[in-house]
Amino acid sequence: MPVTTIAWHDNKIRLIDQTRLPTELFYLEIDEVETLLEAIVKLRVRGAPAIGVAAAFGVLLGLRQFDDSTSRTVFFTELESLIRRIKNTRPTAINLTWALNCMNKIAQRYQQESITIIKEKMLQQAQQIYQDDQNANRKLAKIGSSLIPDDAQIITHCNTGALATVDYGTALGTVFSAHAAGKKLHLWVDETRPLLQGARLNMWELQNEGIDCTLICDNMAAFVMAQHKIDLCIVGADRIVANGDTANKIGTYSLAVLAKFHQIPFYIAAPTNTFDLTLSQGDKIPIENRGAEEITNGFGRRTTPEGSKVFSPAFDITPAELITAIITEKGVIRPPFAVAIRLQLKKP
Amino acid sequence: MPVTTIAWHDNKIRLIDQTRLPTELFYLEIDEVETLLEAIVKLRVRGAPAIGVAAAFGVLLGLRQFDDSTSRTVFFTELESLIRRIKNTRPTAINLTWALNCMNKIAQRYQQESITIIKEKMLQQAQQIYQDDQNANRKLAKIGSSLIPDDAQIITHCNTGALATVDYGTALGTVFSAHAAGKKLHLWVDETRPLLQGARLNMWELQNEGIDCTLICDNMAAFVMAQHKIDLCIVGADRIVANGDTANKIGTYSLAVLAKFHQIPFYIAAPTNTFDLTLSQGDKIPIENRGAEEITNGFGRRTTPEGSKVFSPAFDITPAELITAIITEKGVIRPPFAVAIRLQLKKP
Repeated sequence: MPVTTIAWHDNKIRLIDQTRLPTELFYLEIDEVETLLEAIVKLRVRGAPAIGVAAAFGVLLGLRQFDDSTSRTVFFTELESLIRRIKNTRPTAINLTWALNCMNKIAQRYQQESITIIKEKMLQQAQQIYQDDQNANRKLAKIGSSLIPDDAQIITHCNTGALATVDYGTALGTVFSAHAAGKKLHLWVDETRPLLQGARLNMWELQNEGIDCTLICDNMAAFVMAQHKIDLCIVGADRIVANGDTANKIGTYSLAVLAKFHQIPFYIAAPTNTFDLTLSQGDKIPIENRGAEEITNGFGRRTTPEGSKVFSPAFDITPAELITAIITEKGVIRPPFAVAIRLQLKKP
Repeated sequence: MPVTTIAWHDNKIRLIDQTRLPTELFYLEIDEVETLLEAIVKLRVRGAPAIGVAAAFGVLLGLRQFDDSTSRTVFFTELESLIRRIKNTRPTAINLTWALNCMNKIAQRYQQESITIIKEKMLQQAQQIYQDDQNANRKLAKIGSSLIPDDAQIITHCNTGALATVDYGTALGTVFSAHAAGKKLHLWVDETRPLLQGARLNMWELQNEGIDCTLICDNMAAFVMAQHKIDLCIVGADRIVANGDTANKIGTYSLAVLAKFHQIPFYIAAPTNTFDLTLSQGDKIPIENRGAEEITNGFGRRTTPEGSKVFSPAFDITPAELITAIITEKGVIRPPFAVAIRLQLKKP
C-alpha cells in the first residue's frame, strides 16, 4: 500500500520530508506557518495536489492563535495575508490557489458567525479537500488504468505517486491501479533533473510496490523510444488551461515532443482541481524559476565553474496538440479539448 | 587561447585529468599503458579525437621496453595485444580504432626494419595523427563558423572543445572560430547527464574564451526552443557511418528530434577520421553501456534506492534524416549523405 504523504493530526501537519528520500523516511511535524512555507519552497512537500492540501491546513495553522476574543477585522486581515503568503510560495501549480480559494470562500460564507465556528467550518473544508484528493486520485487511477494494456512499457516524468498527493497518486496512481489489477508492467523512470524526483521518489515508490522499473537520465528517453521499448507516456499536471495546454515539471514538453515523433500516446492524469479555465492558453501560465544552485550544486559538490549563468524553469508548457488524452476523476477527456474540458468540468 | 589537452613529452603522455574540472586544472603524466587505459575508461581523457591521439601514443608507451634485442615475434605479439586492449576500452568512437589501425599499419609496413626504426616510424605516425588533429580541427572550425550567423543563439551537447581534441575542438571549435571572427554569440549549454561534460567542461571552456553562455539541464532544451531562443544546434560525433547516421553522446538524438520539431538546423562537426564506411547504417554501431553508479552516485551521494535497475548507454544514434549538414575539415556535407560522404572522403 502506498504511503500517506500528508496528514492533519493534533492540530499539526505531519508530512514526509521528501528531500530526505530515498535514503531516509522522515516525518516532519509542522505547527508553524513559517515552517510550512519553508517546506513548500524547499520541496520537502511537493506535487500539485499535495501542496494544495498542505496549503489548506496551513491556513488553519496560521489562524491558531485566534478565538472568539479576536476582532473580526484582525481575523480576516490575517486570513488575507496568510493566503497571499502561502500562494506566493509556488506560482505555477493551480491546486495551491484553488485550495486557498476554497478556504477563503468558506470563511467568507460564515463571516457573521463566531471565530470558533468559522474556524470549525474551515477545518471541515480542509478535511473535505483532503478526502476529495484521496477519492479523486483513486477514481482517476482506476479510469486511467483502463488505458494501460497488459505488458505495457511506460515512461513517466517527475513524481506523481503517493508522494505528490495525500496518498496513491495521479499519473503513477494509474500505474498502481493497473498493477493491482494484475497487469504486467515495466516503468522507465527518468531522473527528472534538477531535483531528481524520478530517481529519488518514483524509484522508491515503484520498488515499494514491487513494480518492475528502470532508471534512465532524462536525455535517454528518446533513444529508448527509438528502440520501440515505450508504449505510452503518462505524466501529471500542475495546471491545465481552457484549451488543454498543460504546465508540468520541466522536461514534460520535451517528452511530449519525443512521444509525438515516435507516435507514442501521451497522457496527462490530474484531478479536476488542476484546471484553470480563467486562462485561455498555456503561454499565460506563470512559470516559476528556481535558484541556480539546484543545478550547479545539487548533489553536494559544485559541478560548473563559479559565476556560471543558469536558467532553471521549474515547469514547462505542453501544448494541447501533443496530448492524446487527459485523465481526471470524472473520465477521460479527448480532443477537441476546449469543448470537452468545459463539458466534463460541468459534470457533478 | 583554448588549452592543450594532450601532449607527448619526454616519452610520456601529459594530459588534463578532465574528471577534476571545473574545480581543478590538473595534468597527469602517464608513462604506463595501464594508467592510460584507466584514464580512458574513467573519462579522465575523453572526446573521440582526443582518445584517438591518446591511443596512438599509448601504443608507444606499451612498446617502451623493447629495443633491437627484442625478437620480432615478441614485438608484434605485444603490439597486437596492446592494440586489442586499448581498443576495448571504449567501443563506440571510431577514432580510437582508426588511430590504432594507423599505428599498426606503419609497424607492418616497416616490419623488416630494426625494432628501433619501427618504433621511430611509429612515433612519427603518432605525431602525424597529433598534428593532423590540430590542423583538421582548425580547418573544420573555420568552415563551420561560416554556418553560424552573427547574433546566433546556439545549443550544443557534451564537450567538443579543446578538451575533446588535442586542442581547439570540433563543434565547439566552430563557435570559437565564429567568436574570433567577431560574431556575437550566446551558447545554451546543456549539462549532459550523467557525467556533466556540458556543465563541467563546456562552461569552463566558454568562460575562459569570454563567450556568453547559459547552463540548462538536458530536459530544458525543448522549452528554450519553443521560446524561439535557439537558432541552431551543433554537436560532435563519435562515429558517422556510410549513410550519415551518427553516434554521439547520449542525448544527441533527443536534441536532434527536438530540433526537427522546432525547425532548427542540426549540424554535426567532426574530422573525417570519424567516418566508418564499413557500416551501412547506424544500428550497426556498437553502443557502450556505462556503470549504474555514474547515474546513481554521480555527485558524491546516492540519489536512488539501493538495488535500482539502471540503463546507461553512453551514446545514441541520430539518423541521417535529422541532420542538416556534416562539417568536416574538407568541407560541408549536405544530403543526400550516402553519395556526398563518399565523394568528400575521396578528396585529398
